[in-house]
Order: sequence, then C-alpha cells, then structure tokens
Amino acid sequence: MKQIGLGLLGLGTVGTGLCKLVMENKELIEKRMGISLELKKALVRDLNRERILSQGQLTTDPNEILKDPSIQIVVEVMGGVEPAKTYITEALKAGKAVVTANKELIAKEGHELLTLATEVGQDLYFEASVAGGIPIIRTLKESLIGNRITGIFGIINGTTNYILTKMSQEGSSLESALAAAQRKGYAEADPSSDVEGWDAAYKLAILASIAFGSRVEIDKVHVEGICKIEPEDLKYSQELGYTLKLLAIGKNSPEGIQVRVHPTLIPQQHPLATVSGVYNAVFLEDDSFGELMFYGRGAGELPTGSAVLSDVIACGRDLVLGKAGSLNCTCFEERPVLPMDDVQCKYYVRLVVDDRPGVLAKIADCFGSNGVSLAQVIQKGYEEPVDLVFVSHRVQEGQMKKALAQIEALPFVHKVANLIRVEGEEQFGTAAR
Amino acid sequence: MKQIGLGLLGLGTVGTGLCKLVMENKELIEKRMGISLELKKALVRDLNRERILSQGQLTTDPNEILKDPSIQIVVEVMGGVEPAKTYITEALKAGKAVVTANKELIAKEGHELLTLATEVGQDLYFEASVAGGIPIIRTLKESLIGNRITGIFGIINGTTNYILTKMSQEGSSLESALAAAQRKGYAEADPSSDVEGWDAAYKLAILASIAFGSRVEIDKVHVEGICKIEPEDLKYSQELGYTLKLLAIGKNSPEGIQVRVHPTLIPQQHPLATVSGVYNAVFLEDDSFGELMFYGRGAGELPTGSAVLSDVIACGRDLVLGKAGSLNCTCFEERPVLPMDDVQCKYYVRLVVDDRPGVLAKIADCFGSNGVSLAQVIQKGYEEPVDLVFVSHRVQEGQMKKALAQIEALPFVHKVANLIRVEGEEQFGTAAR
Repeated sequence: MKQIGLGLLGLGTVGTGLCKLVMENKELIEKRMGISLELKKALVRDLNRERILSQGQLTTDPNEILKDPSIQIVVEVMGGVEPAKTYITEALKAGKAVVTANKELIAKEGHELLTLATEVGQDLYFEASVAGGIPIIRTLKESLIGNRITGIFGIINGTTNYILTKMSQEGSSLESALAAAQRKGYAEADPSSDVEGWDAAYKLAILASIAFGSRVEIDKVHVEGICKIEPEDLKYSQELGYTLKLLAIGKNSPEGIQVRVHPTLIPQQHPLATVSGVYNAVFLEDDSFGELMFYGRGAGELPTGSAVLSDVIACGRDLVLGKAGSLNCTCFEERPVLPMDDVQCKYYVRLVVDDRPGVLAKIADCFGSNGVSLAQVIQKGYEEPVDLVFVSHRVQEGQMKKALAQIEALPFVHKVANLIRVEGEEQFGTAAR
Repeated sequence: MKQIGLGLLGLGTVGTGLCKLVMENKELIEKRMGISLELKKALVRDLNRERILSQGQLTTDPNEILKDPSIQIVVEVMGGVEPAKTYITEALKAGKAVVTANKELIAKEGHELLTLATEVGQDLYFEASVAGGIPIIRTLKESLIGNRITGIFGIINGTTNYILTKMSQEGSSLESALAAAQRKGYAEADPSSDVEGWDAAYKLAILASIAFGSRVEIDKVHVEGICKIEPEDLKYSQELGYTLKLLAIGKNSPEGIQVRVHPTLIPQQHPLATVSGVYNAVFLEDDSFGELMFYGRGAGELPTGSAVLSDVIACGRDLVLGKAGSLNCTCFEERPVLPMDDVQCKYYVRLVVDDRPGVLAKIADCFGSNGVSLAQVIQKGYEEPVDLVFVSHRVQEGQMKKALAQIEALPFVHKVANLIRVEGEEQFGTAAR
C-alpha cells in the first residue's frame, strides 16, 4: 500500500479536525483508496499545549515539515497571508502537494500560487477555503467545468446568517444577536471580518473566479456587511414576503461580471430562504442544469476537517496515478467586473420621514424623475418620525443613488435608513405570490 | 488540441440535450479543458425523423459506432437493460470509454459492467443516472470518498414529488394530480415505474452502493409507491407539523444497511420539506460534515444532458491524462441489508373506525401490548366511520405490524388506511416545534 506522509502547518480547530478524521477513517481510506495516510508532523507555536498529536510530532520549525522527504502533502491550516504564502511556495518548490483551508490567501494570492503549482507539476487544493463541509470547489472544477454558469448566490458566512436568523426569529437587535453568537462560539471576539462582509467576499472571489473562468480580484468585490440592518428591516421584509440574507452574489453576463456581498432580500419561497442559523448554501444558475443548491455546515472542526481530508485524498490519488498538477488554475479568460452603478436590481428603501401631507408625493417625484419606478409602499409607525418603505422595480443602481441623494436632501426626510437589494425573484418569487 | 469523438446510442431527450450542450459550449470546453469534442454518430431507430444531428450522422447499425476507431467515448442514452448492456460491453472491450444515463442498467448490472471497465482500463461513468442535473455521483465518488456516510435521504423522483406537492397544496386526489403531471409532461403515459417507486429504487441502489461502499442489489430495496396516499393523509400530516414526501432512504449502521423507498413524513423545518414540484434533492448525513444537501432539477433535456456532458468531459480528461479506469467500482466490502421488520421508525397510522365508546381504549391496548408507545392522536370526521390517526414513538417495524394485524381484526375497525414512516426528526424536528 502506498504510504503518504502528511505535514500540517498549524494545528488549531481545522487541523485537529483533520487529524481526528485521518485517525478514525484510516482503515476506510486504505480499503477504498489503497493509500495509507500517515500524520508525520505539525507546526505549532506552543510545544507544551495538550494536542491530538504526540509531543514528538510537534515542531516550531517549518523546515522540519517543508524539508522532510517523508512528507508528500503539506496541509496549511494556519490562516492569514504570511507566512502561509512563503511556506506554501517552498512546499510546492520542494515537490510537495499542498492543501489549504486559507480563503484570504487563495482570494489574494491564489493566481500566483496556482500558477506556480502548475509549473512545478504539483496539486494545490483548497476545498475547505469556501463553505466548510460543502464540496463546492471540486464540483465547480470538475462536474460543472463544461457549464456556462451565469449566477452564484451564496450564504457563505455562518456568523452573519446566525445573527440575521436570530434577529428575524426573535426581533432582537444586531448587538444582542452578535453577543449570542459570540457566547455560542459562532462569532469571534473581533467579529469585523464576518459582520463587515470580508469573509464572504474572499469566498466569493474564489467561487466566482472558478465558476466564471476569469480571475476576480478581491478589491473588485463590492462589500457591504450587516452593520446597518435594524430589527425594523427584518420586520418589513417579512411583511413584504421576503427573507433577509447576507448574500455573496456573482453574475456573469455579456457586459461583464458582477461580484458583490451585501444584505439581500429574497422571496420566502426561494430555497436559500430556508437556510438558517450557521448553515451555509451555494445556489448556482446556468442555462442547462437550471438551478443547483449545495447546503451544509460552513464551519467547525469536523465539517471543515472533512473538506481538507477530501483534498488530501485527492492529492493522494493524483500522486498514485501520476497526474498531480492537472487541475490547478481554471481561469481561461479575463472578463471585466462591472461597476456597481451599472448593476440592475430591485431595491428596498427605508426612509425615516416626518409624517405630514405631501411628503409621499415629493419623494415619489424624486424617484420618478430619476427613472425609478415603484412596486410597493409601506408606511408604518405612529410616533413621528415614521418609517416609509418602498420596493422599486428593476433599475440601474446609479439611478437609484441619484434619487436617494435628492430624497436625502428634502427637509422632511430625517435619513435614508437603508437600501437593500432584492434578488432571486425570477424563478421563485412572483409565481408563488 | 486533442480531438475526442463521441458516439451516441440513442438520440431522445437526453441525447438531444447533450448534443445541444456540446455544440453551444464547444468553445468554452476547448478553452477550459484543451479538448475538442466531436459529435460523430448516433444510433437511432428511425433515420427519417428530423433531429439535431444531420442525417449523415445517424445510423441504425450499432457497429457503426462500436467499431468506429474515431469514436473514443460512447454515450448510452437508450435506456433499458438490453441491448444497452451488450453494446456497453462491446464498447468497453473495444477500448472505448462509456457514459450512460441508464439507472436501471447500472442498478441491475453496474457491478458486472464496472468490473469489466476496470479490467479493460476504461472509464464507465453514470452521473446522469441519478437526480438529473445534480452532480451527486462524482461528489460521492471523489469529494466524499473519505467520509463514513451514515444516511441518505433522497427526493429522487420528480414525478411523484410533483404529485405530492400538488395534492398537498391543492388538496387534490392522486388521480387528478397524476393527470396534471401527465398534461405537463412530468409523468409518462404509463406512470407505474414512478408512482410505484421503482424509478427511485434504482437510483437509491446506485447511491447507497457508492455511499456505503457495499453493493446494494435492487431486489434488496424495500419499495412502496404513493398509490395508497389519500388527500386526508396530507391534511393530517400538515396538522401534525409534517410534510409528506416519497423518500429514498439509505442508512448504514453497525447492524447492517437499510435501503427503502416509501412515503415518509418529515418535519416541516427539514431542508427536504421545502423541495417541491419536480425538483430533486439528496440529503446526506455523516459524523464529520454533519449534513449536506444537494438540490436541483432531476430530469429534463438540458439538466440531464448537462450531467452526461460532465461525464464526457471527465472521460476526455482521463484520456488526455492517461488515467482512464481508475474510478470505477468503489465497493470495498459486503454488508448485509436489514429486513424491514428490524427497521426502527416512528410511524403515522391512519385507521378508519366506528365512532363508539371504548374503541380508542381497545386500539391503544393493541399498540401497548406490542410495545408500541404513542406520541400523538387525532380523531376527525363527523360522519361514521371516522378517521383515527396515531403517531407512535420509535419502535421496530415488526412490532408495529403485529399490532396493526390485531387492530385490523377488531370488529369496529373498518381498515388500516395507511402506515407512513416518520424520519428526519433528530436534527430538524423537535427543537423547532
């Protein structure tokens, strides 16, 4: 049986999950794949902490992994760009396959690293970098490689999905829902990467690059987090037949690519609307399969460890078959990313206004004169100032922004409290409402 | 660029879908994969019908495909066991890769054909045989090969899901829902394979064999269709917080494998409960990823054609890389299939009884003396005889059947109208109710 040595860079949650699965499923993997995975060594910062591996298997010197000829696969689960990038570069140059769970690194430096991997004829796999236990990367790279994918709609940040689910079900504030998420271990002490949308943006850049076959740079992704969402927005959304989600959206059209992470209203009948709590889902559209959705746990020791294991086994198989390095970069063209002002959407707009005669007419006039046509209006609230909520028909974002700038300047308008895009009605909305 | 010739055995719905996609996505596939797919020839019965291929590309002689050295991949989309099996055997022996969409053939003869494919070092792929456009087979064979999958819950027959959705939403009878499905082209003129559960059983045998790594013979699958379902059952299910689906269920436990297709009640909060109409979904459980669900269109020209194309591209890649035949049979052990009497479930039981004093006590006594403990009771109906509906706690099926045999013999019991198993409450039921 082919023995394959594994070296881990990092031994936190995901690394520990991988070790557990390699130990528990060792016999199963040997029987199914004819390869024997051997956990050789793990790079850690503190040698004295109790861990799943024995102390003799721990090291603080990366060279003990990068230069060990008995290690054929290096698993990077330390996170962050550096020193992960340097270590991965060295591992690839040393003729080792690399598996990483590092979304930030792949989103920012994936192109360079994948190009290197192809040059040196090694695998660089990163299933665990997006959506935890959901096998979406390999599916895009293999099963759907012949498909012309037109849309990606992802709930790919469990922390914010938990927060929005809790706000929606219990009417709680963002702060209290975030505190609950932190108590449950679903949010970090510094939750900014999650609530500001960056975590989802990294993952979207990766998904869109593969799905559209065109490299999406992270700074081209429009990113809005959930910080401006208030309980009122969830209440009105429900009244209007929508569910509010932080969606990572990629669209590919003849004009160019759209990549954006922002709070989004989707019809309550949409399959993504039922994805609640810390669960993740990726919904894809094309003109042949129609719609596909992949649903599962987006984080956690064993789900993410399972995704890493899947890559490790794929590397092992490639080593045995002698076909390493054949499935790295899949970007075959360079497509422009559309500026947000050119994006067309339906919009939910919540204004806080004085409740007096003529207000609605003046606001409606600002919308109309900028080409924004309205589909629904709700006025609620008994104490001044009141909420005024609009849902528009489809319009270019630039037009909507012009209208809102004029509206914001009106004397009886206290503020434009929120502007939330509406998506996913083509298939799942109107028919059922 | 590597040219790869395709020969089609059959040119019906799926074959036509494949041809369309090969034509439309030709450039994309060439750019992404560096292979050029050439549609060479298709075996048809009637040369004179108008088709997507030119008349010169049609033949009634299978040898024009099986013996054509310019054809490297044979796509079998004719259906049925023979002559498909003979043709596939000849194609493999002639050194060609084979892609098939034929669930019945793979469920019945997959073991023999996959063994042959491995012997001759060729690929035999069958993504399109299960769940149309959902890429579940490759995901199980590659991404999840290191996972110990414990449960499969599939909505893998679109016809019956459409019928049950319509009955549930509109209160219509099975007959009228079936007629509607036939009008829409979702059900065939002879719908027996769908409504009796056989179509789902073939697909389950394939899924379970791969997921559990142990060959499941089709005659070991317990099959019940939806013929006994009446509008009352859907009404009571909803009252009890359940959704009724025809589920294909596979479970793998230390005692053995369970494989069964039958109407099933699942909690309304379960992700499968929202899969409506002709959509399909496969829900998986294991002890690392936790839960995964794959959702999409289970049939149709382009969704199924897309699954065939995905296999064709995989074969093409394997040919280029020289690794054909490496991912055929994945069964590595032989596990027993449990008899239904040993299966443990919760059950919904609907009795039709005379409405008189003492009836409930006698029936409850029959349940109790056979170890069946009851969780819920509903009595409805104002005209004699009345419906009496029970939901039990978990109990062995053998015990439940003994109790029902005694109950059926009671003088005031008109009939045991239905016995429906309840699943999926572990994660998604009790917490939310």
